[in-house]
Amino acid sequence: MTDSELAELSLQVGQALLRRKATLTTAESCTGGWIAKVLTDISGSSAWFERGFVTYSNDAKQQMVGVQAQTLADNGAVSEPVVREMAAGALKAARATFAVSVSGIAGPDGGTPQKPVGTVWFGFADDIGRTEAMVKQFSGDRDAVRRQAVSFALNTLRQQFLQNT
Amino acid sequence: MTDSELAELSLQVGQALLRRKATLTTAESCTGGWIAKVLTDISGSSAWFERGFVTYSNDAKQQMVGVQAQTLADNGAVSEPVVREMAAGALKAARATFAVSVSGIAGPDGGTPQKPVGTVWFGFADDIGRTEAMVKQFSGDRDAVRRQAVSFALNTLRQQFLQNT
Repeated sequence: MTDSELAELSLQVGQALLRRKATLTTAESCTGGWIAKVLTDISGSSAWFERGFVTYSNDAKQQMVGVQAQTLADNGAVSEPVVREMAAGALKAARATFAVSVSGIAGPDGGTPQKPVGTVWFGFADDIGRTEAMVKQFSGDRDAVRRQAVSFALNTLRQQFLQNT
Repeated sequence: MTDSELAELSLQVGQALLRRKATLTTAESCTGGWIAKVLTDISGSSAWFERGFVTYSNDAKQQMVGVQAQTLADNGAVSEPVVREMAAGALKAARATFAVSVSGIAGPDGGTPQKPVGTVWFGFADDIGRTEAMVKQFSGDRDAVRRQAVSFALNTLRQQFLQNT
């Protein structure tokens, strides 16, 4: 997915949010602010995006979006329980309609047999209590893994959470 | 400045931080996470970058990095006092060695005669009490203004705060 395709996807997400007068927030670990960057590429994005959390460390995940220390200790940062807590915590802190969270291993270091490079967990939450978590295994280098993660997060949000608008 | 030039600049900043065992945090308004994105493009960036704040709205600036409501009311979000408070607040919240903040008018809307599109304020703070604020007037479209802001923030940090290492 090219930069201009990411921009088009971001525009579609923004238009869907605008139509339903909804807002989105982000809690990003391995994508490191890239989702927030593509959302704010869109002129007028302040109508539906008002903050994002770049929670790269475990401390940041705990302090910024309320992930529990025990959840991190039990599961590791790249896990379903952690992305669920990240999304729920970001949603609450931002008082947003929707939240998306990402935690993964972008590489080239940090992979393990259980969680190889390219493993990325995604969390989704909304203000009517729907939550979802998904894992993907992406291939390619660090840029490719991160790029696919940004794309997957926005596409899933659009197709599964912003569809009926 | 191209994406690969931004990546090279980010790498230089990261190497300088690593040499002095220092960390950096970001408080971004108009750049919307782009600085955090280019920092985390670098493999191993978790050694010197552990969180970033995308404070797009006034509420986010107050709640995430402690900007005072009165400072916003008196000066507007795109102002020297606000970027100074953003940098100081981010530094403190992240317990980082260095903080950089950005607040500007990326356009195409939002410009005024006093603060035309392309006006961008930058704040810098470090843990030995140095603070700095600068304003730039960039030209070009939204992407160009944001790109120049990312570049200026990282370059200034490198040249003025990370020089003697």
